[in-house]
Amino acid sequence: MTLRPSWVESANDPAHPFPLNNLPCGVFSTPGTAPRCGVAIGNAILDMAAVEEGGLTDVGCFHEPAWNAFMARGPRAWAALRTRLTAILAAGSPDRSRAEAALVPMGEASLHMPFRVAEFTDFYSGRHHATNVGTMFRGAENALPPNWLHMPIGYNGRASSVVVSGTPVRRPWGQLKGPQYDAPILAPSRRFDLELEMGAVVGVPSDGPLNVTEAQANIFGHVLLNDWSARDIQAWEYQPLGPFQAKATATTVSPWIVTAEALAPFRVDAPPREVPLLPHLADDGPMLHDIDLSVTLAPEGREPTTIARTNARELYYSAAQQLAHHSTAGCPMRVGDLLGTGTISGPARHQRGSLLELSWGGEEPLTLDTGETRAFLEDGDTLTLHGHARGEGYRIGFGACTGTVLPALDREGDPA
Amino acid sequence: MTLRPSWVESANDPAHPFPLNNLPCGVFSTPGTAPRCGVAIGNAILDMAAVEEGGLTDVGCFHEPAWNAFMARGPRAWAALRTRLTAILAAGSPDRSRAEAALVPMGEASLHMPFRVAEFTDFYSGRHHATNVGTMFRGAENALPPNWLHMPIGYNGRASSVVVSGTPVRRPWGQLKGPQYDAPILAPSRRFDLELEMGAVVGVPSDGPLNVTEAQANIFGHVLLNDWSARDIQAWEYQPLGPFQAKATATTVSPWIVTAEALAPFRVDAPPREVPLLPHLADDGPMLHDIDLSVTLAPEGREPTTIARTNARELYYSAAQQLAHHSTAGCPMRVGDLLGTGTISGPARHQRGSLLELSWGGEEPLTLDTGETRAFLEDGDTLTLHGHARGEGYRIGFGACTGTVLPALDREGDPA
Repeated sequence: MTLRPSWVESANDPAHPFPLNNLPCGVFSTPGTAPRCGVAIGNAILDMAAVEEGGLTDVGCFHEPAWNAFMARGPRAWAALRTRLTAILAAGSPDRSRAEAALVPMGEASLHMPFRVAEFTDFYSGRHHATNVGTMFRGAENALPPNWLHMPIGYNGRASSVVVSGTPVRRPWGQLKGPQYDAPILAPSRRFDLELEMGAVVGVPSDGPLNVTEAQANIFGHVLLNDWSARDIQAWEYQPLGPFQAKATATTVSPWIVTAEALAPFRVDAPPREVPLLPHLADDGPMLHDIDLSVTLAPEGREPTTIARTNARELYYSAAQQLAHHSTAGCPMRVGDLLGTGTISGPARHQRGSLLELSWGGEEPLTLDTGETRAFLEDGDTLTLHGHARGEGYRIGFGACTGTVLPALDREGDPA
Repeated sequence: MTLRPSWVESANDPAHPFPLNNLPCGVFSTPGTAPRCGVAIGNAILDMAAVEEGGLTDVGCFHEPAWNAFMARGPRAWAALRTRLTAILAAGSPDRSRAEAALVPMGEASLHMPFRVAEFTDFYSGRHHATNVGTMFRGAENALPPNWLHMPIGYNGRASSVVVSGTPVRRPWGQLKGPQYDAPILAPSRRFDLELEMGAVVGVPSDGPLNVTEAQANIFGHVLLNDWSARDIQAWEYQPLGPFQAKATATTVSPWIVTAEALAPFRVDAPPREVPLLPHLADDGPMLHDIDLSVTLAPEGREPTTIARTNARELYYSAAQQLAHHSTAGCPMRVGDLLGTGTISGPARHQRGSLLELSWGGEEPLTLDTGETRAFLEDGDTLTLHGHARGEGYRIGFGACTGTVLPALDREGDPA
């Protein structure tokens, strides 16, 4: 597929993340106005509430500060809106003048959570990541758990701590226990980390088992996702019931949901299966996405260094396989459920999506372009995830997914 | 404390679960009316929407089909309503005639979920249960994980599958793998089980660490809770990230939330601490509850057998300690968060709150009063949890927490 020209000139720049081919869904406000639905196009946001008021669409739920009501309309409504917006914003559109009145410059807008997270589930679908972490924790022979090649391992996360890009993240307290001590202490995490992930947003509810084809049809779109992780809290707490407070501080998502339809041209096959998957999890054509991913780390007041470059095609399980597995036992799925992929690492060292892997458990600190080193995150560090699918003469972006680490506070609210 | 006499005569029966001392919160409907808030008193429900309309209270959120809006008013509103309802329903009340018009016979009402579950977290706070399960899975020497005596271990569950008492529960499918096979199969669970628990309902939101005293004040009330569990799915999936689909089918709660204030007279001390707790988790007076708990199993069309009798004071950690731990890393807590205690077993065999423990992993099946045996649940079995705190001349009950196991269905909707 090639670039679809738009009368919004900035959208025709081949390097721009928001061409007419993209049309990602966000929620924005301007000074004095309430948050409402918007669609990014070039350097502007198409105010969907204004589009409705102008009579260009007749959907009826774009004044809400979330896309959930629209997602609940289902895949036919999703396709119809994409077709309509593509016509409205195409070069030569007869609707240009009315739509121009609904454009808001991106620079004047504040971006909010694009959807209400019903529940958040985090998976562990990257083989390189699972192998790296397993090697560190259990040794190379037992790196992959026995179940890993048979199902996308996942655990329930915490929806209340999902935040939109730009929200600062406070270093958490937690129980830490070094091997040399008999008892844990309560202290700020010393091994606070990022996880470079993507997330899938469920748009169709279900209350019984789904196969992979059905699951694929229920996914509205995808976001970038940073699952902030306190490795020292995790190491002490995670046996036997899994991560809990280590993952409860914050999970940051990109401000834009890129729809499954916009990403369809970038679907690629999963890697060869070492063992066959059971029929309900079997691949149904290319279901991963070729999306370049990177993460930068900027110490406070300094320039950012790109610390990792990877690609979403490095995953072993697709979002549809995650959703199919999630529904196996009859778990009801709801509009706004968010499924994280787990950390997406590639085979090479610079492709690792967490500091845990990049610094190999802290033993081999990274050197930043500024000359500073990092084993784990320091206060004031700003982490930013970027993602782009690359078409012919255009790119599909998600907007930055960023957050700055604030120092831990003590009980009186002073720096700890 | 002794029985508070009410003009609702049935509430004065010393064996009745809903005396004036209780006043538990539920949601009910009658044929042709919408679900709304109600309070149980004797054999009747006080229709809180009608109470409002009659001018007896002036709160403004009882027409809703959930107590969340009222919970969000906070502890002063909770105490004020309890005081007001106690006056309205007391023997000799001048409000009797107006309140009588708002009474609905319990037998005419259908009961619904009493609150919207924001998120569900399940803990593992019973030492006998943790020891039993740990002994079966890891041997007696490693029964309790090293962290267990230092924090209430918990994991995030699935709010979408929490259902009210009376909802049938469909036997789940899942990946099962016996030790004699190389690969898992997809099949209906063969080791489907109950977990006898209680749940605490958070009524005050928070977004930073809470100590135990603060956490205690944020708990609105308690329910009975059966965390249905597929042991064979769990055994294969739970390493390394914890239970997932094994717990995703259903969690059944009692139709009535018994308020923390109604249970205050039944507070008891936690057991002696084998190792001291860190200050943020330290006991702040008696925080467990003396509540007799039991569970019955009735095969389809047969009489029930009481398969376990235990008490909520057998827990090691209180709900307030669970909530304090939950907030340690800054996890935002919301109105309607549900915290399960984990299975409550006592030291004796008949006090074990799951079939896994009662049948010792299936090796020692139970014999029911009907002569049938059970290692795990069979289709058609009805499980019912009961709970009562016993005062002088009165009892505080939760209503039955019940569910019947339906057979698994295949993809075509036929019995599997």
